[in-house]
Amino acid sequence: MPDPSLLESFPTPSDTPFVIEHIAEEFTSVCPKTGHPDFATITLRYQPRPAREQGVCVELKSLKLYYQSFRNEGIYYEAVTNTIRDHLVHAMNPTWLQIITHWKGRGGIRSIIRADHNDIPPHFRAMT
Amino acid sequence: MPDPSLLESFPTPSDTPFVIEHIAEEFTSVCPKTGHPDFATITLRYQPRPAREQGVCVELKSLKLYYQSFRNEGIYYEAVTNTIRDHLVHAMNPTWLQIITHWKGRGGIRSIIRADHNDIPPHFRAMT
Amino acid sequence: MPDPSLLESFPTPSDTPFVIEHIAEEFTSVCPKTGHPDFATITLRYQPRPAREQGVCVELKSLKLYYQSFRNEGIYYEAVTNTIRDHLVHAMNPTWLQIITHWKGRGGIRSIIRADHNDIPPHFRAMT
Amino acid sequence: MPDPSLLESFPTPSDTPFVIEHIAEEFTSVCPKTGHPDFATITLRYQPRPAREQGVCVELKSLKLYYQSFRNEGIYYEAVTNTIRDHLVHAMNPTWLQIITHWKGRGGIRSIIRADHNDIPPHFRAMT
Amino acid sequence: MPDPSLLESFPTPSDTPFVIEHIAEEFTSVCPKTGHPDFATITLRYQPRPAREQGVCVELKSLKLYYQSFRNEGIYYEAVTNTIRDHLVHAMNPTWLQIITHWKGRGGIRSIIRADHNDIPPHFRAMT
Amino acid sequence: MPDPSLLESFPTPSDTPFVIEHIAEEFTSVCPKTGHPDFATITLRYQPRPAREQGVCVELKSLKLYYQSFRNEGIYYEAVTNTIRDHLVHAMNPTWLQIITHWKGRGGIRSIIRADHNDIPPHFRAMT
Amino acid sequence: MPDPSLLESFPTPSDTPFVIEHIAEEFTSVCPKTGHPDFATITLRYQPRPAREQGVCVELKSLKLYYQSFRNEGIYYEAVTNTIRDHLVHAMNPTWLQIITHWKGRGGIRSIIRADHNDIPPHFRAMT
Amino acid sequence: MPDPSLLESFPTPSDTPFVIEHIAEEFTSVCPKTGHPDFATITLRYQPRPAREQGVCVELKSLKLYYQSFRNEGIYYEAVTNTIRDHLVHAMNPTWLQIITHWKGRGGIRSIIRADHNDIPPHFRAMT
Amino acid sequence: MPDPSLLESFPTPSDTPFVIEHIAEEFTSVCPKTGHPDFATITLRYQPRPAREQGVCVELKSLKLYYQSFRNEGIYYEAVTNTIRDHLVHAMNPTWLQIITHWKGRGGIRSIIRADHNDIPPHFRAMT
Amino acid sequence: MPDPSLLESFPTPSDTPFVIEHIAEEFTSVCPKTGHPDFATITLRYQPRPAREQGVCVELKSLKLYYQSFRNEGIYYEAVTNTIRDHLVHAMNPTWLQIITHWKGRGGIRSIIRADHNDIPPHFRAMT
Repeated sequence: MPDPSLLESFPTPSDTPFVIEHIAEEFTSVCPKTGHPDFATITLRYQPRPAREQGVCVELKSLKLYYQSFRNEGIYYEAVTNTIRDHLVHAMNPTWLQIITHWKGRGGIRSIIRADHNDIPPHFRAMT
Repeated sequence: MPDPSLLESFPTPSDTPFVIEHIAEEFTSVCPKTGHPDFATITLRYQPRPAREQGVCVELKSLKLYYQSFRNEGIYYEAVTNTIRDHLVHAMNPTWLQIITHWKGRGGIRSIIRADHNDIPPHFRAMT
Repeated sequence: MPDPSLLESFPTPSDTPFVIEHIAEEFTSVCPKTGHPDFATITLRYQPRPAREQGVCVELKSLKLYYQSFRNEGIYYEAVTNTIRDHLVHAMNPTWLQIITHWKGRGGIRSIIRADHNDIPPHFRAMT
Repeated sequence: MPDPSLLESFPTPSDTPFVIEHIAEEFTSVCPKTGHPDFATITLRYQPRPAREQGVCVELKSLKLYYQSFRNEGIYYEAVTNTIRDHLVHAMNPTWLQIITHWKGRGGIRSIIRADHNDIPPHFRAMT
Repeated sequence: MPDPSLLESFPTPSDTPFVIEHIAEEFTSVCPKTGHPDFATITLRYQPRPAREQGVCVELKSLKLYYQSFRNEGIYYEAVTNTIRDHLVHAMNPTWLQIITHWKGRGGIRSIIRADHNDIPPHFRAMT
Repeated sequence: MPDPSLLESFPTPSDTPFVIEHIAEEFTSVCPKTGHPDFATITLRYQPRPAREQGVCVELKSLKLYYQSFRNEGIYYEAVTNTIRDHLVHAMNPTWLQIITHWKGRGGIRSIIRADHNDIPPHFRAMT
Repeated sequence: MPDPSLLESFPTPSDTPFVIEHIAEEFTSVCPKTGHPDFATITLRYQPRPAREQGVCVELKSLKLYYQSFRNEGIYYEAVTNTIRDHLVHAMNPTWLQIITHWKGRGGIRSIIRADHNDIPPHFRAMT
Repeated sequence: MPDPSLLESFPTPSDTPFVIEHIAEEFTSVCPKTGHPDFATITLRYQPRPAREQGVCVELKSLKLYYQSFRNEGIYYEAVTNTIRDHLVHAMNPTWLQIITHWKGRGGIRSIIRADHNDIPPHFRAMT
Repeated sequence: MPDPSLLESFPTPSDTPFVIEHIAEEFTSVCPKTGHPDFATITLRYQPRPAREQGVCVELKSLKLYYQSFRNEGIYYEAVTNTIRDHLVHAMNPTWLQIITHWKGRGGIRSIIRADHNDIPPHFRAMT
Repeated sequence: MPDPSLLESFPTPSDTPFVIEHIAEEFTSVCPKTGHPDFATITLRYQPRPAREQGVCVELKSLKLYYQSFRNEGIYYEAVTNTIRDHLVHAMNPTWLQIITHWKGRGGIRSIIRADHNDIPPHFRAMT
């Protein structure tokens, strides 16, 4: 089951604001209604707090393991998206953060969900 | 015939606003004038009300079954688009919602219809 | 010859504003100067008046037959574009309407004509 | 040699403003310096004056013959572009008009020239 | 070596402002550090002064010969870009002028340099 | 290990502001956690200070050697990006500077990091 | 109605065998069952008999007028293809000849018909 | 008018067989029936005789001038193709030679003509 | 001038036959007739003799310097192609070797030349 | 340095012949002449011996570590390709095996090397 304790972080290396994007193309969870597997691409974009405010970045391998902890979880698309947003906000307390999930078709329907934390700069407000 | 009672919903998992998009590429209904089948892609975009206001999301399998209930219905493109918009607004009472239908060519003419509910944020106002 | 009496309409199914686009790729008429056939794609975009104002939509098969009535008419590109705009405005009295015609090359020149009725929303003001 | 008397026009069919674009992909003239042939695509965009102001449109076959009159003329790219602009403005007195010429490479250099008459609406101000 | 005396010009054919773009895809010079050849595409965009102010345009063949005069010159990318800008500004005194150079990869690094003269209109401010 | 002493510069050739972009597609370093190699494309964009203020440009071959000095360094993506930004700002003191790193997938996740120095002009604020 | 008397020919210019292909993208006829227009691309490939055998080629403008004579004819796809093959064989008596017709979709089905005269060389035996 | 005396040649530089292809994208002549200009791409492929047999190659600039000599000639597509083949065979007496002409659309019909001299190796027998 | 003494080789590392392809996209020489620069992509494909027969491979940096030695040489396309073939055959005595040169357009004509040494395996007999 | 002892294998799971392809896009080694890094994509295709002949397959993670052992090795492209072929043939003794290496451009030249073991089925004989 989704395990936020897997998320590790390290101190951000700078006081100058910068932006990080991690695109995970191999996410899988389980539909809570049908039991069938779901597949998604998860895009995470965020700006860590500066070093002088003890800002941190998520460590990439721990992020991968955290994503893998959803593998056998029965959970809706919407809950995946909001859960990841909340866990990462809790782990990093970033200046802003954005999660966009693209779900491969199931029953002929494909889906995109977007969840934000704090104000996103205008040129990141696109759906994709 | 179109059966909105098929639509099921579940409580939105968050108080933070977020946006959901479902793209159904296998919609079919029947032309009320000629009796021939029509084929469309239906794009649904919406923002659910927050959890503290009892906001809900449409359940994906129920959405698929709801779309399938148009299969043998004789109904115009424009009515399909507005009917889906109205049924989904009634079922979810979302903050905003947008339906865009792309219809494959019939008699050499292909069509696109867009219907909104409440104000759509500027970067979602495109036709497609 | 162009016959606007072929145009049929049906009551718009909604009071909420929505936008309709029909793209006809098989239009043909005749050059009034040379007698040779012309070929075009006709894009129609419009917003019907709401149901409470007795708004109507053009019926798709009747639109096809109306377009076919230009088949043996000797008429300039510009007149085709304005005539279709005027006939459809007369038949539907829409909130706004836009006709864009793309003509295949003749003598090494291809052409695009755009005619509007009332103010077109900004994101539909492109040429194509 | 360029012969503006070849340009014919006909009364614009409407009082409602509309926009016309003719793209001629087979233009050829001669380099005045080397005597070698030049090849270009000529894009003409304009808005005719309304019918109530005796607005006119250029007739398409006459435009083709006018373009062909440059075939053996030794003339610079810049002069071709401005000459066509001036001849067409004189022949039609349009509300606005724009000429864009794309010249195939000569000596490894390809060129684009743009000349306007009156104010061009913002969404037509692109180079191409 | 770069020889601005090769640049010839001719009187601009019009008082109406217009814009000229020449794209040279076969530019080559020599790296001053390694002696190896460099290859670039040079884009020149400018607006000549109007005829009533004795505005001039650069003659295309002379531009080609001028570019060829860099063939065996050891010179940095940045100096090529600024030198061409300065020579052309001196030769034409245009209303505005822009030079963009795209350099093919060397050591796995490819480069783009942009140098302007006077204010560039907003829709020409892109990097490419 | 990353060696900023490799960076050489030369005086900027102009007082007129201009913009330089170097795209290095063959960057490699080592993951500090797993010891596996990482691969990235590094985009550097900057505006050197003018010549009258002793502005300098980074010499391209020295930039390549500097990038190669990361080859066997165990270092996070975020630290690579900020380290390069800081070393180049120190070496050149430019008007503004931007580093964007695109990292190839590892564990199914690919990443993009952006770090700026001073205000970036609006049309360079994109993520890529 | 289809009028083979429109077809004109001229003596083939050579005794050496050669191959001619004419691709007409603006063919239209009428469906004999529904009365609706059909649209096709007609490809004609043939080898004329040599000059010493009084071989002839079809004149291009006459071919265009001949194709236009199908404009208001009610005729099946299969009959169009065979009729054109037979009329052209009769008019030219070529060494070999091939007609391939590509019909735009009607009712969601698009069609390709091929008819040959005499043996077609192997590398022309493809369907398209 | 087509002037084969413009064709110059030089001794082939080798006894080893090799193959040459010249693709001219800016050919123009005049339709003998309508007087309108025609535009084509001319592909020439050939194998010169070996040096020991006094084999020659066509000089490229002379080929360009020869092609330009068709500029104001009224001549059919088929005659252009065979004339060029015959003139080049006469000027070079090559081991084999192939001319393929692609003509831009006129009246909605575009054309391809192929003429050979001697046996063409199998992998050059395609139409294009 | 072309200097085959620049070509260095090293012993082939294997007795098992294998195939090597080097594609040089930045070749330039000078037209012997006009003095203008020519630009080409040079593709070299060959199979070295096996190690037991003292087979050798051309060293890549020496090949680059050899190609650069054509930079200011006035020489025809055909001679470039055959000269490179002969120099490389002399330097390596390979089992078979193929040179294909693609020349950028000059005067609207682009060219491809292919020269072989010994029998080329069938799947390498294409022109490109 | 290249370490074949890193290669592990496991028994092939079948007696029926099948084909395996591993494409490694992040290979890097060092040029023995210049000391600069080289980057390649390595394609491995092979058919393991059947299970009844004790056929084996290479284990994927061990293949990755084996490729990484070239990271700081000074070695020519040709030797990389033959070395990998020989090490893998020794480790697996497959029915047939093919190594194709694509090297990123260095000095404007990009390279492709192919080395085979035993007869490759015809549809794998292409260069890429």
